[in-house]
Amino acid sequence: MGENFDKLRKISGTVFDLASAVSLLEWDQQTYMPPGGSEGRASQIATLSRMAHELFIGDEFGAALEAAEAEVDPDSDEARIVWRLKRDVHKSRRVPADWVEEHEHTVRLAFNAWVNARAASDFSAFRPHLEKVLRLKLAYAEFFQPYESPYDPLLDNYEPGMKTSSVKQVFDQLRREQVPLVEAIAERADAVDDSFLHQPFDDRTQWDFGLQVIRDLGYDFERGRQDKAVHPFCTSFNKNDVRITNRINGNFFGPTMFGSMHEAGHAIYDQGIANNLDRIPIMSGSSLTSSHHASHGIHESQSRMMENLVGRSRAFWQAYYPRLQQAFPSQLGQVSLDSFYRAINRVRPSLIRVEADEATYNLHIMLRFEIELELMRGNLAAADLPEAWNSKIQEFLGLTPPNDAQGVLQDIHWADGYIGYFPTYTLGNLIACQLWEQLEQDVPNLSAQIAAGKFENLVGWLHENIHQHGAKFQPMELLKHVTGQGLTAQPYLRYLKSKYGEIYGLN
Amino acid sequence: MGENFDKLRKISGTVFDLASAVSLLEWDQQTYMPPGGSEGRASQIATLSRMAHELFIGDEFGAALEAAEAEVDPDSDEARIVWRLKRDVHKSRRVPADWVEEHEHTVRLAFNAWVNARAASDFSAFRPHLEKVLRLKLAYAEFFQPYESPYDPLLDNYEPGMKTSSVKQVFDQLRREQVPLVEAIAERADAVDDSFLHQPFDDRTQWDFGLQVIRDLGYDFERGRQDKAVHPFCTSFNKNDVRITNRINGNFFGPTMFGSMHEAGHAIYDQGIANNLDRIPIMSGSSLTSSHHASHGIHESQSRMMENLVGRSRAFWQAYYPRLQQAFPSQLGQVSLDSFYRAINRVRPSLIRVEADEATYNLHIMLRFEIELELMRGNLAAADLPEAWNSKIQEFLGLTPPNDAQGVLQDIHWADGYIGYFPTYTLGNLIACQLWEQLEQDVPNLSAQIAAGKFENLVGWLHENIHQHGAKFQPMELLKHVTGQGLTAQPYLRYLKSKYGEIYGLN
Repeated sequence: MGENFDKLRKISGTVFDLASAVSLLEWDQQTYMPPGGSEGRASQIATLSRMAHELFIGDEFGAALEAAEAEVDPDSDEARIVWRLKRDVHKSRRVPADWVEEHEHTVRLAFNAWVNARAASDFSAFRPHLEKVLRLKLAYAEFFQPYESPYDPLLDNYEPGMKTSSVKQVFDQLRREQVPLVEAIAERADAVDDSFLHQPFDDRTQWDFGLQVIRDLGYDFERGRQDKAVHPFCTSFNKNDVRITNRINGNFFGPTMFGSMHEAGHAIYDQGIANNLDRIPIMSGSSLTSSHHASHGIHESQSRMMENLVGRSRAFWQAYYPRLQQAFPSQLGQVSLDSFYRAINRVRPSLIRVEADEATYNLHIMLRFEIELELMRGNLAAADLPEAWNSKIQEFLGLTPPNDAQGVLQDIHWADGYIGYFPTYTLGNLIACQLWEQLEQDVPNLSAQIAAGKFENLVGWLHENIHQHGAKFQPMELLKHVTGQGLTAQPYLRYLKSKYGEIYGLN
Repeated sequence: MGENFDKLRKISGTVFDLASAVSLLEWDQQTYMPPGGSEGRASQIATLSRMAHELFIGDEFGAALEAAEAEVDPDSDEARIVWRLKRDVHKSRRVPADWVEEHEHTVRLAFNAWVNARAASDFSAFRPHLEKVLRLKLAYAEFFQPYESPYDPLLDNYEPGMKTSSVKQVFDQLRREQVPLVEAIAERADAVDDSFLHQPFDDRTQWDFGLQVIRDLGYDFERGRQDKAVHPFCTSFNKNDVRITNRINGNFFGPTMFGSMHEAGHAIYDQGIANNLDRIPIMSGSSLTSSHHASHGIHESQSRMMENLVGRSRAFWQAYYPRLQQAFPSQLGQVSLDSFYRAINRVRPSLIRVEADEATYNLHIMLRFEIELELMRGNLAAADLPEAWNSKIQEFLGLTPPNDAQGVLQDIHWADGYIGYFPTYTLGNLIACQLWEQLEQDVPNLSAQIAAGKFENLVGWLHENIHQHGAKFQPMELLKHVTGQGLTAQPYLRYLKSKYGEIYGLN
């Protein structure tokens, strides 16, 4: 590598260190920080984020970037690093450092207010914070005038290159096919019984079982750990320290198990990037981050794949169900593998997104996407959110939340400043299925391997084709490179129809 | 407050945020960080420390400091803040940013090497790291030429204004009186039996009992927490987030209990500084820190007071022993309060400093002080440390360590870059007794209050006279202000002779 690229790596390493310290400050806020720490934490994160931003858009960094660009081989990884940094610097330069500092400060306090508001199911306690977040997001969009949609600059921070209009198009197609499917299933709701999942399951045993599964999947605990938090998430300080969080539901088998598998899918991605991409910061949301990945849609494809295509498959439980029965003999000893498999795949319109089944999950995303669009267009005020939420969830899922905790307050995202993020979950569902069809071609006996509890070839393929590349490519470019085609809902719809057709005896 | 002081506070707040982020990075390294994180952690801490240092010695900060100085009322707290910042800036300006970055990077890796070397009792694995640390410390002393002793610049970073010659003088006096006392006790070693403390005590019950005690003492868990770590310590991110760590010895009642009380003494200090002193960084060691205190000697006076003057007093156990017996009925149910009190105060020359009794503790410090002096004078090489250690501990305590883990590798300090710190423990012992004599005058029924489990007046006095003042005064200035005299060993020696004279039936 040349001298100029080395210099670029040195400055970007400094930015990376600040970004990864911010990630630790955030992780700690959600895991161990005592309540009194909130104000100080908001300051720390705001200060460090501002400093990272200023260094990133500064003249020295700009000059290092230009000098490195002139030096690197255009076909090299270094050229891709320069490309990605340039893209993010270009976007960051439009954003004043004051905005960054205020935004980080605001969302840290909003996060704290959200935790309390959700616990008390009191939207009014959260509303002033949300109003501040919204005001900042609207100002942010203006930095990127002209735009096709005010939602574009936000979406592009999570899904580089993606337009709001493309999301709408694919969501429309999905909705056309997914809503009738859910309706057809609803007519046969009694075909699946999952009552035995709703009984006491020992907290510690659930936690430990999940840990063993994700260790088997390939999550390296020498370079990671799982802690308890209000909201499950994955965070990466660098490829050698990638942590996940989870929560425990002691009266329902499912959330803890699939939460671990979901987050482990993220973590295995972050642990698997090539060494030469580590310590290169990228922009995620409006901040610089120490997780180096192609996009959040690609990231969610990895987590949703582990959670659903692996974790809710019959093959996987052929390997693990006997062990689960041993762990919970009184709850599951008399339940057959087939009944268990059907139960964990029971489709039922429900209020909580993170506990939603695969068939209804995207509907939760669509309603959030529509609400966010209206917020960003200025057609909806924070004060009117509970009403808008309740009306949308009635429209999409036929349900009315008994309170705001189970409605508009359920997700961390708006408190945390993640407006524009939700679509990536659905993109992740689609991409996961596209990758899976390719995987089945490249690893012919994939299902048999999973049924034997062997994941090396699965994870090896993901490392080779996705993980190692980090943020080297635009997400749609990467997808096309691996599967031969751009984003399409067809594999996902095929998967859904085939799986649920079988479970519910449709057609 | 004036405009210039506000500006000073803003910049120093930025430095503070960086310093407190470093404190969290260090806390995490010692509590939850997976092994893979070490390299990245060393970078993060080195980068942030360098940035804090550069801001602190930079022209903008210097100008803000001068402008504020011209503005503040000389008798105000603001003037004291300016005084302390000027002192630390003056020292920091002598130290190149490269040194700071290299030092922080080196000690982070040295810490990790020490953990492993200690576990394997393998000094040779730690030696190259220690050599780097030493080389850096020797270089550091040179930044402060001319000096009376090369140890002075290090000592002054923990105990502002203190000279090595003063420490030697007071240590000589102590040694003259303390060694004969320990010898007299040794002749009556059989007078105290503590065998019942050495048996299994349930981990969780010990931990929870300690938590309850320190909550009663006044450690506010809304603004703090206790976690497990290899080495007990206290760290402060600001006055509203002050955390302690501890370890559990499941076969010996004492270390866990007194470890909690010791660290809580530190934490109650950090939680108790005045609001207007919070978010003002000070120099501790060679780094900027988010714990705002007069000196480490004053800090140790607070921890040693809680651990010993309270925790190893008869009065304290009059309140807590019945509860302890309830917690451990099979171990202590048949043991009288008097036997228990004598057992926790048993004097026995031992290998491990943190488990040493009050009568021998200072001897552990003296041997370390002598070794550090020789290291800093260049008369002793890292390679010769185990031999020097073993010979000194034979001289001071008549013991030979069976291995380096129980000898030269036992303490975290040298790995962590804390050369010059050890004397502050003994200073803390002396200051604690000086303060206690004053306390007994000001709070006449102090002992009866403690025997009733009431600590409000004790802690209230400490808040009023010590805690709230933070780093506003030089430590010896503060001591004189509170007790009417400077540092003296007499109250400590009086305390020791009276307590152990009674326990061992001396004179």
